[in-house]
Amino acid sequence: MFLTETKRFHFLLLLIILHSEVEQAYAVWPMPQQMSQSTDRYPINPQLLAFSYARDSAAQSGCSVLDAAFERYFNLIFPDFVGGTGLSNIWSEPKPFTVSVKVKNGECDGFPDEGSNESYNLSVSAGQAVLKAESVWGALRGLESFSQLVYQDDYNLYFVNKTEIEDFPRFQFRGLLLDTSRHYLPMPAILKTLGAFHPMTHIYTQSDVKRVIYHARLRGIRVVPEFDSPGHTQSWGKGQPDLLTSCYKGKVPSGTFGPVNPTLSSTYQFLNGLFKEVTSVFPDSYLHLGGDEVDFTCWRSNPNVQAFMAKMGFGSDYTKLESYYMENIVNITAALNKTSIVWQDVFDYRERIPMDTVLEIWKGVPADYRAELGRITLAGYRVLLSAPWYINHISYGQDWRNAYTVQPQNFSGTEQQKKLVIGGEVCMWGEYVDATNLTPRLWPRASAAAERLWSDEEKTSSVDKAFPRLEDFRCTLIRRGIQAEPLFVGHCKHEYSGL
Amino acid sequence: MFLTETKRFHFLLLLIILHSEVEQAYAVWPMPQQMSQSTDRYPINPQLLAFSYARDSAAQSGCSVLDAAFERYFNLIFPDFVGGTGLSNIWSEPKPFTVSVKVKNGECDGFPDEGSNESYNLSVSAGQAVLKAESVWGALRGLESFSQLVYQDDYNLYFVNKTEIEDFPRFQFRGLLLDTSRHYLPMPAILKTLGAFHPMTHIYTQSDVKRVIYHARLRGIRVVPEFDSPGHTQSWGKGQPDLLTSCYKGKVPSGTFGPVNPTLSSTYQFLNGLFKEVTSVFPDSYLHLGGDEVDFTCWRSNPNVQAFMAKMGFGSDYTKLESYYMENIVNITAALNKTSIVWQDVFDYRERIPMDTVLEIWKGVPADYRAELGRITLAGYRVLLSAPWYINHISYGQDWRNAYTVQPQNFSGTEQQKKLVIGGEVCMWGEYVDATNLTPRLWPRASAAAERLWSDEEKTSSVDKAFPRLEDFRCTLIRRGIQAEPLFVGHCKHEYSGL
Repeated sequence: MFLTETKRFHFLLLLIILHSEVEQAYAVWPMPQQMSQSTDRYPINPQLLAFSYARDSAAQSGCSVLDAAFERYFNLIFPDFVGGTGLSNIWSEPKPFTVSVKVKNGECDGFPDEGSNESYNLSVSAGQAVLKAESVWGALRGLESFSQLVYQDDYNLYFVNKTEIEDFPRFQFRGLLLDTSRHYLPMPAILKTLGAFHPMTHIYTQSDVKRVIYHARLRGIRVVPEFDSPGHTQSWGKGQPDLLTSCYKGKVPSGTFGPVNPTLSSTYQFLNGLFKEVTSVFPDSYLHLGGDEVDFTCWRSNPNVQAFMAKMGFGSDYTKLESYYMENIVNITAALNKTSIVWQDVFDYRERIPMDTVLEIWKGVPADYRAELGRITLAGYRVLLSAPWYINHISYGQDWRNAYTVQPQNFSGTEQQKKLVIGGEVCMWGEYVDATNLTPRLWPRASAAAERLWSDEEKTSSVDKAFPRLEDFRCTLIRRGIQAEPLFVGHCKHEYSGL
Repeated sequence: MFLTETKRFHFLLLLIILHSEVEQAYAVWPMPQQMSQSTDRYPINPQLLAFSYARDSAAQSGCSVLDAAFERYFNLIFPDFVGGTGLSNIWSEPKPFTVSVKVKNGECDGFPDEGSNESYNLSVSAGQAVLKAESVWGALRGLESFSQLVYQDDYNLYFVNKTEIEDFPRFQFRGLLLDTSRHYLPMPAILKTLGAFHPMTHIYTQSDVKRVIYHARLRGIRVVPEFDSPGHTQSWGKGQPDLLTSCYKGKVPSGTFGPVNPTLSSTYQFLNGLFKEVTSVFPDSYLHLGGDEVDFTCWRSNPNVQAFMAKMGFGSDYTKLESYYMENIVNITAALNKTSIVWQDVFDYRERIPMDTVLEIWKGVPADYRAELGRITLAGYRVLLSAPWYINHISYGQDWRNAYTVQPQNFSGTEQQKKLVIGGEVCMWGEYVDATNLTPRLWPRASAAAERLWSDEEKTSSVDKAFPRLEDFRCTLIRRGIQAEPLFVGHCKHEYSGL
C-alpha cells in the first residue's frame, strides 16, 4: 500500500534514472574533497588494463599491500572477467589503459595507525590514470575511488571519464564496531575481535584473529579489540574463578555474580596478563577498555567490597570504586604503550585518566550527545562519536538519512575543542544481529556515516542530493556481491545473485 | 551496551538451554491442536529410514505430491546425509524406521484450494510413524510435523520421541503476500505472481509463473495473484494506451496520468482479456483485484470523467465512480468463475459486490481493524486480516511478539460473524525489501503469524511460552539453510553457513 502521490514521484524518478548515466554522474562514495569531471570518456578493455608502479615510486613490485590491491581491484572493477579472448573482445577497445601508482613513503609491511596519511591525488586522462599518495594507505583509498569511476554502458563496454581528484579524510578515526559476543559471527562475516561461546564451535582462535588482522591491513583497516570491563563480563567468570564479585543476599552469597571484583590484587594480576597477551596479538596502538553500564547493586551487597570502600574512604560513592578500577587498568595498558579508548561513563565519573585516553560517546536519546561533546573536549580529551550511529537499531523506511545528517562538530566549543573530535564509530551491537542479517542491516546504512566521516560537511550537507548517489553506490556494492539492502523502490542493472 | 540485569537473565537462559534437550521439548511449530509426547525415544538411522504408502492408502507410489515430499523431507530431516556407509554408521542404530502414510482421498494431481482438508493424525512409536490424512495436503502438514519431531543428540545421532498428534488448521486461509512490483524478486526468492520492470532482465515469463505454481502445489501452497486496480497502475499505462486517466491542469492535459479510466468501454474490454489470460495461467479459484488507495485528484481534473459523472448521476461523489469500476471488474471475474478478493476500501465505499467476495483488511493504526472486522462480517462478507501483519514494517527488538498476540476473532459480533474470518495474510510490501533482505525480514517473524492462523488460540496465548519454542524453530530453519534472523542473544547448534 503506498500513496499514489509518492508512487507517481517514484515513477518520475525511475524515468530520470533510466535516462541518465548514473554511474558517470554520481561516481565516488564517500564524496572526495575535490573532484572535477568532464564528459570526455575513455574506453577500457579489461584485457588491456594494467596496474603499475610509477618509476619514481618509493614502493615497487613486491609491496604486499599494493600488489594484493591491484589484483583485488581488477576483480572488483571487472566482476565478470574470465580472461581469454572472448566474443566481447570484437567490440572492445584495442588500446591499453594504465593505472600508474606512486607513493612517497615505501613502507609496505606495517599497519595503518592513527598517524597514517590517507590523502591521495588521482588524475584520469586518455589511456591512463595517475595516482599519487603519501603512503600505501592513501594509495588504497585512491584505488577505491578509481574503481568506482569505471562504469559500463548499455552494451557492457567499460568507460572512465576524464577526472581530477584531490582527496583526504575529514576525520582520522572512522570506525565500525562488530559485536561478536551477543551472537557468534562466523569468520566469513567478521572483520575483527575475540569472543567466547560454545567451547568447540563458537570460538575464534588466535589464527582466526591473525587472519582478520592480515585481511584488514591489506585494505588499510585498523583492528581495535574491545575488552569491556568491569561490567559485561559474565562470561569471563566462567574461566577465571574469583574474578567477578560474588553478590550477597543479606549475609550470604546468593550464588550470582556481578561486575569484576575491583578490590583484589589478583584481579589486576589477571588483567595485566590478559592485556599483555592481547598486546602480543593485536598490533594496533589503541585498545578499547569499555567501562560502560556498571551496575553497582552487586558491589553494594558484598561485605568485602563494603570494607574496601571504607578503607579507601570512598564513603558510599561507588562511582569512586569504578574510577579506582578504571584508573588501574588504564595504567596497565599505558605501561604496555597502548592508547586506551573508554566509553563516556568513565569521563562522567571523573576518573583520573591519562590525557591521551580517547572517550567514546554512546548515550544519545534522551541524553544530549552534543553537550557531552562540549564537556569532554573542554576537559581536553579526544573524543569519538557513536551515539547517532547505533546501526543495529533499525526502523522502517530511510533511516540512513538520520545517520547522514549528523554533524559531529556542531556543539558549543572553541576551534581547538572541535579538533579533539577525532571521528566516530558505527556500532553494530549483536542482540538481534548475527550472520543471517548482518550484511543487509549494515550496508548501505553504514555508508551514510562513512561519507559523514570522510567528506567535506558543506559539500555533503544535502541528504536529498546524497540519495541518488547512495542508490548508485548501493548498486556498486551489489555488483561486488555485497548483500546491501535497497534504499527505496527501483532496481539495479545487476541485481543481487547470491541466493 | 546492555543492562547487566538483562545480561544476567540471558546468561541463565543460555545455561537452561544448554542443559535441556530443546529439540525434544519444543518440537512442532505451529503448535498442533492436540499433541502428547513421552520421554521414550527411538533411534533413527538415516540409512534405514523409509517413507512408504500404507497398503490401504488411496494414494500409492506414483502420487506426484507425496513421492516428491518423501524425498524432500528426507533431505530436510538429514541435511548432512551423503549416503554410503560412513564411520558414523558404527554408532548408528541397525533397526529400520518406517513412516507409513495413508490418505483417504487419492487425488494427487490437483491444486490445494479453499475446500482442501488439511487435517492429519500422526502416531510415532517404536520403529514407525503412522500418518493418516484425509487428503495429500493434510499428509504434507503431517510430514512437516514429523520432520520437526526428529532431533539430534550431542553425538549427532537422530531420535524421535513417542508422540501422538491430532491436528488441523484454525483458519483455512493463511497467506503470505510478496510484492514483486516495488522491487523485482528473482525467481529463487519468490513464490508467486507476475510483474514488469526492465523489459529484458526484470520480468517473469509464463514459464516462471508455472514453475512457481508447480513448486507451490507440491508443498500444498495456493498461489493467488493480485492485479491491483484502478490505482497502483502507473506501469500498466506503459503498455496500454488510453488505459489510464489523463490528468488535466486547468483546461489542458498535464502530461501525467492517474488511475485506470473507468469511463471507457475499452478499459473493460482490456481487463476482460487480461483476466481471461490470468485465469488460464493461475489455477486457483481466488483472484485479488486490489481496489485500494485510489486518489481522486486526477479523475476530478479530467473533463471527460466529469461529463461521465454527470451522465451517471454520481454528483461529485467519486467513491461512486470507483464503486462503478469495481462492480464491473468483480462481475468480469465472477463470469470467469473466480472468487474475488478486494481490499477493505471497496467495502468502505459500499460497492454492490457479490456476497462471495472476500474483503481484506489492511488499515491498522490509527484505524481500528477490530471495528472493521465487525462491520464487514455484520454485512455477511468473508474477511481476511492483514493490518497487524504488515511484516515489511520493522522495528528494533522482538517485534514478532506483536504479530503473535493478534486475536483475529476478538471483535464485537456473533459466532456466525466470527466464522466469516477465514484467515489472514502476512504482507511483505517491497518499498524497502528485495532479494537482499527478504529472507531475514520474513523469517522467523512470519512464523509468529503462522502459529496464530494454524493453532488453537487458548493453547498459544502466552507469547513468553512461545519464545523458546520459536527460538528452537528458528534454529530448525537455519539448519534447513533458511537465512532466518535471531530473536535475541544466543546461538544454534548449527549456525547459518550460507555466507
